[in-house]
Amino acid sequence: MSNKLVGACIFGQSGGPTAVINASAYGVIRAALDAEEITKVYGAANGIKGVLEDKLYVMDEEDPEELKLLLHTPSSALGSCRYKIADPEKDDKDYKRILEIFKKYNVRYFFYNGGNDSMDTCNKISRYMESVGYECRIMGVPKTIDNDLYGTDHCPGFGSAAKYIATSCMEINKDARVYDNGMVTIVEIMGRHAGWLAASSALATEFGSGPDLIYLPEVDFDMDKFLDDVQRLYDANGKVLVAVSEGIHYADGSFVSEAKISATDGFGHAQLGGLAAMLAAIVKGRTGAKVRGIELSLLQRCGAHLASAVDIEEARMAGEEAVKQAVSGVTGKMIAFERDEVDGNYHCRIKLLPLDKVANFEKKIPLSWLNEERNGLKHEFIDYVLPLIQGEPKLPLEHSLPRYARLKKVLAK
Amino acid sequence: MSNKLVGACIFGQSGGPTAVINASAYGVIRAALDAEEITKVYGAANGIKGVLEDKLYVMDEEDPEELKLLLHTPSSALGSCRYKIADPEKDDKDYKRILEIFKKYNVRYFFYNGGNDSMDTCNKISRYMESVGYECRIMGVPKTIDNDLYGTDHCPGFGSAAKYIATSCMEINKDARVYDNGMVTIVEIMGRHAGWLAASSALATEFGSGPDLIYLPEVDFDMDKFLDDVQRLYDANGKVLVAVSEGIHYADGSFVSEAKISATDGFGHAQLGGLAAMLAAIVKGRTGAKVRGIELSLLQRCGAHLASAVDIEEARMAGEEAVKQAVSGVTGKMIAFERDEVDGNYHCRIKLLPLDKVANFEKKIPLSWLNEERNGLKHEFIDYVLPLIQGEPKLPLEHSLPRYARLKKVLAK
Repeated sequence: MSNKLVGACIFGQSGGPTAVINASAYGVIRAALDAEEITKVYGAANGIKGVLEDKLYVMDEEDPEELKLLLHTPSSALGSCRYKIADPEKDDKDYKRILEIFKKYNVRYFFYNGGNDSMDTCNKISRYMESVGYECRIMGVPKTIDNDLYGTDHCPGFGSAAKYIATSCMEINKDARVYDNGMVTIVEIMGRHAGWLAASSALATEFGSGPDLIYLPEVDFDMDKFLDDVQRLYDANGKVLVAVSEGIHYADGSFVSEAKISATDGFGHAQLGGLAAMLAAIVKGRTGAKVRGIELSLLQRCGAHLASAVDIEEARMAGEEAVKQAVSGVTGKMIAFERDEVDGNYHCRIKLLPLDKVANFEKKIPLSWLNEERNGLKHEFIDYVLPLIQGEPKLPLEHSLPRYARLKKVLAK
Repeated sequence: MSNKLVGACIFGQSGGPTAVINASAYGVIRAALDAEEITKVYGAANGIKGVLEDKLYVMDEEDPEELKLLLHTPSSALGSCRYKIADPEKDDKDYKRILEIFKKYNVRYFFYNGGNDSMDTCNKISRYMESVGYECRIMGVPKTIDNDLYGTDHCPGFGSAAKYIATSCMEINKDARVYDNGMVTIVEIMGRHAGWLAASSALATEFGSGPDLIYLPEVDFDMDKFLDDVQRLYDANGKVLVAVSEGIHYADGSFVSEAKISATDGFGHAQLGGLAAMLAAIVKGRTGAKVRGIELSLLQRCGAHLASAVDIEEARMAGEEAVKQAVSGVTGKMIAFERDEVDGNYHCRIKLLPLDKVANFEKKIPLSWLNEERNGLKHEFIDYVLPLIQGEPKLPLEHSLPRYARLKKVLAK
């Protein structure tokens, strides 16, 4: 394989959006526009679906200043998808179509930004292109607020979500304690299988105003123990703030959010609100306290106004580095992060991981970072997460409201 | 009445907290500490309850730098209450107790920060003190995210909540449109009787990324019309973002959130989540679309990190002005705002309103500011609200998280 490969590139975004996935997009697009080996830069509409449907935006047509605003525009500017690609050995229809599109536009570089499933997609496309002898360099750019990608110290998107969660929990905690009557507040935080996000609420507690109790999916949930924990603190302090991961589950693996709750527990039927509303009803039934359930919902993953400057810069860098590495000859790898200490300060270093080593594994919080009671975090976790939420970006504003990138999205013919 | 009145003052916070009620507290406390007529500055724990229970904090004991941090500390730093005081003609027990405490500490100034009910409390205490011949100057400082206080152009707390709501709706709107499948998102916003807060989501739409439909309590809610509105936009665009005020009600006055919904509407029984979850279930039943309900909950009223600099400064000024006016001889008044234009720019001017003119009235959005379809706002509303959300305060941070005021709260003996 000669090192110099000339042709177009496609960039796509996949999976749930984050506050900084567009910062990675900017990193890729800017570096690709600047790379002389890359003749044209296409953005796929809605990830791999845009490739399959021949719906590609010509990024060369965009105003450079608008592109730069991607650094502070939340969600996926090009659109995302949750398309699960088949195994090429079982069904190669999609791959044939992708090859057809790659040939049509002379695509020699493919950059895909996403989580576990997206790295799996990358990996399969990479193997297929190799098997048919089509030269194309394929790189994965990590992204997930869930922070559960294997082999990387952390993931772009997580730091900003963690900062949003910690700040919001500090504010909620202040609000939930204003009256002199008893009050239990339950905050539901994203994270179906790993508790990194819910754990980040511990930052609020560390800095003076946060949850008293935190429950993560890393540990089997015990409803009786939970109710005892809440009751004890309620009796002692009158106020309790609880953070729960949406993914908490019983020992048999069933999600607490999906369990049927008997009428004696506060209600008798299918519930509409999420886990927070359900737990609130149960706690109210048990303690008689005033209870409020709060679901941070989409806000925690699209809160660009509270993004971490460190996270934005690392997300951008991951995108840029993917292009630089590919141009220099690398393929079949995901950009990953390694944590260094330089003069006692946090430093993030890029490393490359083979795509097949990343795909379909999930990284969880080490149990040794949880307290003895399994309802809070030790300082090891604070030390881990604190550097990732640092720095306040200078947000582009218009009338004191966010000014997001406005892309022309000119379709390739 | 001689103009010069020397004695202590009590300051109290009442009703639901806001992002800037502590900015008013700072205005009052700082000005009172600086006024030579005021011999001692007490902060009542949990509003008027702290007076009744002789639980007063000595503000003179606080570190001035910590006090200054109140400008950026959300919620009520001294604690709040929702205590409804009796009519002095019917039951004067509370008033006798208040007089006793006032005499004990030689209190000659009383400043109370709150909404409608608090102005009513202020008014009753003022009348009582006059009736028993106890010289004491009593001033109300307005506060409510609901913006429904009568006789003032707007209320401290509203601008910051409006900014939080507009910014969050912009972010949610970006997030809710990433996939290429259909999606309806329903955001529930505070405001039981007046729609100022839900209406503020129109700012997001005005600046490029906000709700398609907005429903306010100023208009009777029609479920069929609502479902038709959503269906029409869903069919046309595939994506719909709806903002609803928690206080929307049917023509008979019953709240939509409290209505029983039949099984055919998506569910059959008492619901746990709030209005957003309920409407989401109904819309899902009707359209078959993926629907998500999001309740902004406490976040919208305690979002100090997104506070408007204009709001913070006006809240502070209202507190300061209450002290200055009282010291100069004024009593029985609430500080209110009048809007001026100076060289084409927004300018806020203080005026004084008799307490009995404010108490127990509610100010609603003029119907002429709603669009013809009654599901959106006209530009008159944008012109009204836009100046109130302006400016980004320089937030005190520690480790990139908010650094709130830490008060000693030394109790008076």
